[in-house]
Amino acid sequence: MKRFASLMVGGVALACVFGCMAERPGPVDQSVALLSGDKLLAGYRDWRLVSVAHEEGDLDDIRAIVGNDVAIKSFRDGKTTFPDGAVIARLAWRHTPSQENNKVFGRAQSFVAGPPVNGIQFMVKDSKKYSATGGWSFSQFDDGKPVLDAAKIQSCFHCHAPIKDRDLVFTRYAP
Amino acid sequence: MKRFASLMVGGVALACVFGCMAERPGPVDQSVALLSGDKLLAGYRDWRLVSVAHEEGDLDDIRAIVGNDVAIKSFRDGKTTFPDGAVIARLAWRHTPSQENNKVFGRAQSFVAGPPVNGIQFMVKDSKKYSATGGWSFSQFDDGKPVLDAAKIQSCFHCHAPIKDRDLVFTRYAP
Repeated sequence: MKRFASLMVGGVALACVFGCMAERPGPVDQSVALLSGDKLLAGYRDWRLVSVAHEEGDLDDIRAIVGNDVAIKSFRDGKTTFPDGAVIARLAWRHTPSQENNKVFGRAQSFVAGPPVNGIQFMVKDSKKYSATGGWSFSQFDDGKPVLDAAKIQSCFHCHAPIKDRDLVFTRYAP
Repeated sequence: MKRFASLMVGGVALACVFGCMAERPGPVDQSVALLSGDKLLAGYRDWRLVSVAHEEGDLDDIRAIVGNDVAIKSFRDGKTTFPDGAVIARLAWRHTPSQENNKVFGRAQSFVAGPPVNGIQFMVKDSKKYSATGGWSFSQFDDGKPVLDAAKIQSCFHCHAPIKDRDLVFTRYAP
């Protein structure tokens, strides 16, 4: 935990909420807080929905992006810069054909959320603390454990860096 | 409104949360309550996420299923029957390729939520009031207006009827 904390405080990008691949997928209990002691990130499974997405290729997931109150307000207000305290989380599940639904539709067309995959990713805004990475910390948890691979961490920040006009946030609010 | 109210009270299935096609797609302001005077359905855009899904074919959407507090508790408790007061809503958006994301990934793999489509659908549980349709009312709103097509209404209930072992609810909770 101490090592992870130092990564967070150091403003090094652990991973990315949208633009990067995750390794070590597996089932995660997404209903509980992953960072004990960090109230900002507690209860993210209760946060409101920002949007949804689907990634083909190696990721092969269907995902939901949720935000805490600060983030949701910014999204809804159409802000292009998020205030300190904004937290965005990305959950993902295997993009899974649903035979049950297809039977009702009478054709193969339905995909649902399978088991959790590709970790859970957070962006936490603190413009001073994380000034080296655009004001955001990036983190990912696989099976409830933080990803500590420095190269991966850095690559994820680089993924988000080009989205400067929306404060490094890929996701747009889905009304 | 009076006609719509009679449909709801009569327990006739207006549409379905998961299994049926929606017509008259169009942009909808999903952040506001659609049923003024019906507090149950107010603020559904603030409800917690149940799961996500993707429909190919004519629907061609990516969707989110959310629930009010009563519904979420039932899902999380693993209940197969929902108590009266449970409300489930289905939002959907056009399944839209993201050139912006694909540029980062270096390949065409990313799909995001485009404009809202296929209406907003609700299931409201009241085992007595809606006993004729399995204890649920089904409703759909296109462009903020309730769908009043009786044939469509009935067909949507029939879509859900086979899912008896989960109280007519297709969606499973995504952890």
